[in-house]
Amino acid sequence: MKPSGVISLTTDFGGGGGVLRGVIWGIAPQAQVADLSHTIQPQNIRMASWYLTRQTHFFPSGSVHVVVVDPGVGTVRRPLAVQAGDQYFVGPDNGLFTPFYEQAEENGWPLKIIHTDKPEFWLPKVSVVFHGRDIFSPVAAHLARGVPLEDLGTPITDPVRQPLPRPTRAGNELRGEVILLYQHLGNIITNIDRVHLEGIDPAGVRVTLGSTTIPTISRTFGEHQPGELIALFGSNDELMISVVNNSAIALLNPAVGDPVTLTF
Amino acid sequence: MKPSGVISLTTDFGGGGGVLRGVIWGIAPQAQVADLSHTIQPQNIRMASWYLTRQTHFFPSGSVHVVVVDPGVGTVRRPLAVQAGDQYFVGPDNGLFTPFYEQAEENGWPLKIIHTDKPEFWLPKVSVVFHGRDIFSPVAAHLARGVPLEDLGTPITDPVRQPLPRPTRAGNELRGEVILLYQHLGNIITNIDRVHLEGIDPAGVRVTLGSTTIPTISRTFGEHQPGELIALFGSNDELMISVVNNSAIALLNPAVGDPVTLTF
Amino acid sequence: MKPSGVISLTTDFGGGGGVLRGVIWGIAPQAQVADLSHTIQPQNIRMASWYLTRQTHFFPSGSVHVVVVDPGVGTVRRPLAVQAGDQYFVGPDNGLFTPFYEQAEENGWPLKIIHTDKPEFWLPKVSVVFHGRDIFSPVAAHLARGVPLEDLGTPITDPVRQPLPRPTRAGNELRGEVILLYQHLGNIITNIDRVHLEGIDPAGVRVTLGSTTIPTISRTFGEHQPGELIALFGSNDELMISVVNNSAIALLNPAVGDPVTLTF
Repeated sequence: MKPSGVISLTTDFGGGGGVLRGVIWGIAPQAQVADLSHTIQPQNIRMASWYLTRQTHFFPSGSVHVVVVDPGVGTVRRPLAVQAGDQYFVGPDNGLFTPFYEQAEENGWPLKIIHTDKPEFWLPKVSVVFHGRDIFSPVAAHLARGVPLEDLGTPITDPVRQPLPRPTRAGNELRGEVILLYQHLGNIITNIDRVHLEGIDPAGVRVTLGSTTIPTISRTFGEHQPGELIALFGSNDELMISVVNNSAIALLNPAVGDPVTLTF
Repeated sequence: MKPSGVISLTTDFGGGGGVLRGVIWGIAPQAQVADLSHTIQPQNIRMASWYLTRQTHFFPSGSVHVVVVDPGVGTVRRPLAVQAGDQYFVGPDNGLFTPFYEQAEENGWPLKIIHTDKPEFWLPKVSVVFHGRDIFSPVAAHLARGVPLEDLGTPITDPVRQPLPRPTRAGNELRGEVILLYQHLGNIITNIDRVHLEGIDPAGVRVTLGSTTIPTISRTFGEHQPGELIALFGSNDELMISVVNNSAIALLNPAVGDPVTLTF
Repeated sequence: MKPSGVISLTTDFGGGGGVLRGVIWGIAPQAQVADLSHTIQPQNIRMASWYLTRQTHFFPSGSVHVVVVDPGVGTVRRPLAVQAGDQYFVGPDNGLFTPFYEQAEENGWPLKIIHTDKPEFWLPKVSVVFHGRDIFSPVAAHLARGVPLEDLGTPITDPVRQPLPRPTRAGNELRGEVILLYQHLGNIITNIDRVHLEGIDPAGVRVTLGSTTIPTISRTFGEHQPGELIALFGSNDELMISVVNNSAIALLNPAVGDPVTLTF
């Protein structure tokens, strides 16, 4: 697969993709580098995984996504470079990329997983606490400037897997959960996707979270008054619970993992 | 007007211009993309408008400014692409760009307003909640790589207008208001500009906000002691109230819209 | 020294490197621009200095680092452009770059300090409060596109110096201090570096901060349980105090400047 020259960065640092760009541009001076998120909750692999599944398919074919959510840094966990479908991923072997393995397997897309064990593609000096800078960024830069994936290390078939929770259906009920709290806009994000309701009219679906029930899934914010509590599909087809021009998180105070039930 | 290849992003997302870059670089691989602000208060059109007026003229001629502060997304409000003077703007038709319409009209600069109603310049699939990604970013990318503005849709002459409040003068008094609280540095920003005091010596101007009066407008922070409350013109000629090396917001606790009176 | 075309930005604005990119790309359209940090504590020269020493050597030779932590803006303090070793720096003459002067002097590296007093390399209109935009960014852009450092102004030999505190050794004790609190990950950063313990086995070193003593310096997070309080060398060889998967700052509530003592 031809690289696009685009690299995205996702970390739990709370900022600070700057030094990673310094490393990348030393190897691939023309690379376009985007910050996808630096506010993943520290060490929260599941949140990073979910976030990536909603974003990476908007990037050009052959883009490289560097992910540094890495509680096991400095231990024996392997550094990986992955092709899944038409995107590349570089990061630790801790389950982060599981949804992309599953998606490639379910759709028969290309899937190659490489243990990037060749130090000639790393920085000359590797710290034990920051492989994002010392291994993942240089490997991503080499990939972005055209080094073939297979040249970066040794193929493996046993990556760590940590699947995202999927909603379950029982009769006229679909049971999912809160997967993310998007603080800035106050939206409660669930693991239920538009595709899970295929063939069902959203207008006739009741959404229950704790003791609150919302009688329907709306089409858009704009058809409601400020302050109204609504359920709707978000920008990536994820079901979310929102207050128009305000915060559903402040109103309902949910926790990640709380059950969300749809009845239809 | 020749595009500069530069695109700026202003949103109320609280972060996350990454996916917009993914979309843009799929269409315009060489575009330079700057985050202007992602911390516009959610849905605050006036704050975004004011912020833009202070920044966009520092960009090269032919730059494209994408603005996603969009309470009406998913309703019938139109997506726009605008040339005002030597800059382009792309965003919703909700009044955001009014100061640029007024400035172009007052100065006799070029002003073209296009309803971007041609889906061939959007992403193939458009969500009802995220036109910033699905319509504005691809339209901006096409503009940045050289598609003529007029080709992107249908000219209109009746854009929504939402003018910024202007200060009023009565005798030896100028009455304005607080327009923005800049939390990180603690500065209180007003809608009074250096140009409103043309011909008046700032040193002889008293500034009143609530029960506080500052006896003069200073030239710079550096000529005062840490902790002093001062009024001065900011980096974009806007009058602001500040505490040297500290927070005027914490000290005075003002609200956006509070009157600010200058006496001279 | 050949420029790399890369510019980094470090400020205390709390965001907002966007307008600086607008200025830079008007002069150097191809420049690669990275945000190093915009969350330096306002006016904290020492924090900015320390931060830079840990990051800039990861950039390609000939990169330009713009630093806008500038309490004296608008007064007579000079704007500078500096070559120290294989990196360029642009910012105010307030001591920010002292560690780079010292490092160049101690290692016999190139050191050139220029008072950038030629307005033809600034924006046409210079405000008294924002030299970061009006002087430093345009000067950096000219440097990045190949204007020789010496052409930008007048060489000086008496820059303001503000050295970082260095730890002191007495017998089997090394006395340093807390230099930075990294809130997002909860780490307490000290001014003690791995190099200060050369020849001493970290495993046998006790670390004391206030009434807390940690019996050893660990190699990595991954060999400890979540919740454990540990000391270890961070990604830039700085000694830090951390709680695995949690916040040492919340646990110990230290202040910048608090003494940290190592006994071995």
